[in-house]
Amino acid sequence: MNYCSHCGHTLSVRIPDGDTLPRHVCGRCGTIHYQNPKLVVGCLPEWEDRVLLCRRAIKPRYGLWTLPAGFMENGETTAEGAARETLEEANARIEILAPYALVNLPDIDQIYLLYRARLLDLDYHPGQESLEVDLFHEHEIPWAQLAFPTIEHTLHQFFQDRDSGHFELHTADIRY
Amino acid sequence: MNYCSHCGHTLSVRIPDGDTLPRHVCGRCGTIHYQNPKLVVGCLPEWEDRVLLCRRAIKPRYGLWTLPAGFMENGETTAEGAARETLEEANARIEILAPYALVNLPDIDQIYLLYRARLLDLDYHPGQESLEVDLFHEHEIPWAQLAFPTIEHTLHQFFQDRDSGHFELHTADIRY
Repeated sequence: MNYCSHCGHTLSVRIPDGDTLPRHVCGRCGTIHYQNPKLVVGCLPEWEDRVLLCRRAIKPRYGLWTLPAGFMENGETTAEGAARETLEEANARIEILAPYALVNLPDIDQIYLLYRARLLDLDYHPGQESLEVDLFHEHEIPWAQLAFPTIEHTLHQFFQDRDSGHFELHTADIRY
Repeated sequence: MNYCSHCGHTLSVRIPDGDTLPRHVCGRCGTIHYQNPKLVVGCLPEWEDRVLLCRRAIKPRYGLWTLPAGFMENGETTAEGAARETLEEANARIEILAPYALVNLPDIDQIYLLYRARLLDLDYHPGQESLEVDLFHEHEIPWAQLAFPTIEHTLHQFFQDRDSGHFELHTADIRY
């Protein structure tokens, strides 16, 4: 961040009055440009005893498998964002059930919020960010080809909870 | 958003290739400037049968009561952010118990994540963003002087759950 997005002047990094952290501050108009973590929203779509995964057609982790998820957009709720990402990546329609995993990734300034969801029909197919979309039984999950630690953690938790018959929100912090 | 924060050139608003929404895009270096919702993290600190509230010394809602909460910072987890805000606003030390309220505010591009927390001692006092900090029994809560609908919603839910003896994560969408 080099220039003020409001007036175009150069920025300096300093601690504003009344603040405790260094921020990018405009030397002309005084605008403080805060940078905050981003929320990634998605879901774990179930169809009977199988789970839907998408194989990534984009970087990073091209070709690896993931749950449908992406950056939350302005103007939507977390559940709406999770359903939108599932539609975009897998052309799949879901019913959101409940928040299931809250995973902090403080080293990359992201928070994942993944919902349990019920796939409404089998008429899914890859969106432009996916190479393949498929349903997997537990023993079919491509554990060695999963895209992100958050996805692996959440799937492990899910199958454990499914065995016990009891689902609730899980929280985790993953550091690299 | 008028200028590119990377190179200082003017921005235009258009839908980038492969995207579905209009973004601010730099006409010179091509940087796409995404805008995403912000996460507000905080907590509901309990001491025996009382709850800690802060009276705001800042706009908006100057002079009204709220739970300690604020924008999550880069490099921290949601629970760390909630504890940091409680220390900043109330100089209060807490133990985080569990996520309690997830409230979407899509009209202002915010998501509140509030934890239940246990106040560790009574040595609290107002930080520079607070006029007063105090503990309240349920019948003492200043319902008409609460700062935000999210706070009112969460406190109502909390006392209802406390009566029933059962706490779990609540989700809500609040539209203006």
